[in-house]
Amino acid sequence: MTKRSIGVVLFDQFELLDVFGPLEMFGVLRKSFEIHLLAERSGTVASAQGPRSVVDQTFDDAGSMDLLLVPGGRGTRNEVDNEYLLGWLRSRSEVAEIVASVCTGSAVLAAAGLLDGRRATSNKMSFEWVMTQGPEVTWVPEARWVVDGKFYTSGGVAAGIDMALSIVAGLLDEEVAVGVSEGTEYDWHRDPSWDPFAKIA
Amino acid sequence: MTKRSIGVVLFDQFELLDVFGPLEMFGVLRKSFEIHLLAERSGTVASAQGPRSVVDQTFDDAGSMDLLLVPGGRGTRNEVDNEYLLGWLRSRSEVAEIVASVCTGSAVLAAAGLLDGRRATSNKMSFEWVMTQGPEVTWVPEARWVVDGKFYTSGGVAAGIDMALSIVAGLLDEEVAVGVSEGTEYDWHRDPSWDPFAKIA
Repeated sequence: MTKRSIGVVLFDQFELLDVFGPLEMFGVLRKSFEIHLLAERSGTVASAQGPRSVVDQTFDDAGSMDLLLVPGGRGTRNEVDNEYLLGWLRSRSEVAEIVASVCTGSAVLAAAGLLDGRRATSNKMSFEWVMTQGPEVTWVPEARWVVDGKFYTSGGVAAGIDMALSIVAGLLDEEVAVGVSEGTEYDWHRDPSWDPFAKIA
Repeated sequence: MTKRSIGVVLFDQFELLDVFGPLEMFGVLRKSFEIHLLAERSGTVASAQGPRSVVDQTFDDAGSMDLLLVPGGRGTRNEVDNEYLLGWLRSRSEVAEIVASVCTGSAVLAAAGLLDGRRATSNKMSFEWVMTQGPEVTWVPEARWVVDGKFYTSGGVAAGIDMALSIVAGLLDEEVAVGVSEGTEYDWHRDPSWDPFAKIA
């Protein structure tokens, strides 16, 4: 069985659950996925909620990844102007099988130009700002997650967990994803059009 | 407003989402909660899924905490025999306002004797093993989470997020917890008796 590499982009003030919700779902499938926490510099990175994570490899040292995951969080307000990160994302996205974002992570993908001409979504509470980062993107205001080619973008925070399970289902098998959701006692919303939060925001 | 301290017990092979699901919910309320990742030794601790976290303080260096949170994960199979951790938990639980566990974290609380004579729950898939750690505990096989005095124990992994929101509702206000669940686009199950996973396991 192929073991796929997942490269997670960390930056100062990333949103905790944007990263560790999806990584729980991929991570319990240890024979299928290998997780790499990546950042511009080695050492540690602080989340928006406080807890710090250890960087596995720098962007430069990391090999090409099968899956790329870009989280949201307050830090994205800075990262949309980080030309080094945007260039790295453009380059690595070319060879990745899947490029995914959670929450305002789609603003970073949009700022890199990767979503131009594509459909995408984001956190509903920050939607206006996110849209400014990608005038050439067809933003979908009501969606749990959106798939366009290799690009997967999800709504806010917990929406990333549903998206991750749908990626597992697509790459492996629907029953594997069901098994992961049951083992983690997670109430998986399998329908990408389910989005009560679009109506609240 | 009182700012409460949350001490999260980390050990090798802890379950990622058991820790970072609840911490997302508490952590977005930065004016109300302050998070401390605690462990036996300083440095970093590896989760069962791979990603490593940075220890904020050792058990000995940490002050008393208002809330204690014990996650589950494969590592609990070792920690139920860790007399140093069990003694520390007994001592710190006396002064804590709330002592909570996620998933098989309740096996650790049970091994410490803290749940004797109390009602508690755990991950449904590991329930048989967890029960062996607390013969004097009234184990509740069907529950999203259980509250008995200051002790909150939840079902597997994602159940900890629902429990955390209920703690936020109890300590602060129901509307604050609803706001957190909406902001994080999390479908909060507010009913502690909701437990479809008990029927699957």
